[in-house]
Amino acid sequence: MKKKIFKLPKATLERLALYYKTLQNLDDEEVVMISTPELAEILDIQPEKIRKDLSMIGKFGMKGVGYDVINLKLQIGNILGLQNYWRLAIIGAGNFGTALANYEKVTDWGFIVAALFDVDEKKIGEEINGVRIYDFKKFAPISRRKLIDIGVIAVPDAEAQKVADILVEAGVKGIWNFTAAKLDAPKNVTVVDENLMIGLSALSFYLNQNTN
Amino acid sequence: MKKKIFKLPKATLERLALYYKTLQNLDDEEVVMISTPELAEILDIQPEKIRKDLSMIGKFGMKGVGYDVINLKLQIGNILGLQNYWRLAIIGAGNFGTALANYEKVTDWGFIVAALFDVDEKKIGEEINGVRIYDFKKFAPISRRKLIDIGVIAVPDAEAQKVADILVEAGVKGIWNFTAAKLDAPKNVTVVDENLMIGLSALSFYLNQNTN
Repeated sequence: MKKKIFKLPKATLERLALYYKTLQNLDDEEVVMISTPELAEILDIQPEKIRKDLSMIGKFGMKGVGYDVINLKLQIGNILGLQNYWRLAIIGAGNFGTALANYEKVTDWGFIVAALFDVDEKKIGEEINGVRIYDFKKFAPISRRKLIDIGVIAVPDAEAQKVADILVEAGVKGIWNFTAAKLDAPKNVTVVDENLMIGLSALSFYLNQNTN
Repeated sequence: MKKKIFKLPKATLERLALYYKTLQNLDDEEVVMISTPELAEILDIQPEKIRKDLSMIGKFGMKGVGYDVINLKLQIGNILGLQNYWRLAIIGAGNFGTALANYEKVTDWGFIVAALFDVDEKKIGEEINGVRIYDFKKFAPISRRKLIDIGVIAVPDAEAQKVADILVEAGVKGIWNFTAAKLDAPKNVTVVDENLMIGLSALSFYLNQNTN
């Protein structure tokens, strides 16, 4: 069966992740059905936008009844590729690396933290949340053995490109970049930047508009 | 002088933060002038989009010369409210709280981490990156004394709403929410959710599209 390829705007993609999170919460609360207006109310997003987003990925729900929570969650998870159980390696067992290794949402959403890497000899051999810290010098062979799909870069900015090059060379397909560095990578490697300052700047902007 | 109020689309606001980051890097590298095509190349954003974004916040640059890096950075920082030196309190001195207290971009961008709070007696009185951890039970008086503007919620999801209520009650104007909880807050308090799973889901989506 040929896989269907979706081209989705970034904003839609981000909202799909939000819907997924909300449906997961609803499922935890044992809610079985949810209507678009209810979802809109919870998420503070216009119902038309939700309908449009969902229409882009398939046909869901029944008029006047709403969506089956578990089914919609599975369908969205499927589009987001969450059924693939992507295997992550976290590079840098500092504060962020440790926080991410302990971040339960990562495993809740079906990702597997398969290894941590660091260059600090005091850290190598230790475990965080049951995951071992390996010597980053041995990244390529360990990455192959552990079938790593995604490398999470949580090292100082100045080291980021060097780390990215080693990840790419070792055959990692995706990079989740927690540094402020703009990474160069070949086209077949997907890089997603996690820039925390965007959220904090947005907050600053809104506060600044509200201040008299 | 009456302050100018800007209504900006979320995507523009996010790009402004990206421009700010890039201009800061350029300034660090002692680049003095930058053209729109150069900025477009660095950021992998279409030049027309950059021109449109910047036209929404003012008149910058000279035809055929480009932008003065420092001036444009200051202007964008001004729109983003970064000249306000917002004072942050981080609630939860766990992995994320500690990572954020050590995250140098926060101070680089003009924010001040003024206090940490926790309920764990072993942590209270300790310091992270020179910032003291206080007893969260005393949040209101300490927050007033430390002139806290923004509360960063980095506690377990189940505690998030209770923490938010205490922050709001104490007069905090903005909340940066690192939990997966959807927080209720009065209209005069701005809440920005930092949902890390959005970035990781986007990466998963792109990898899934590329896999055959």
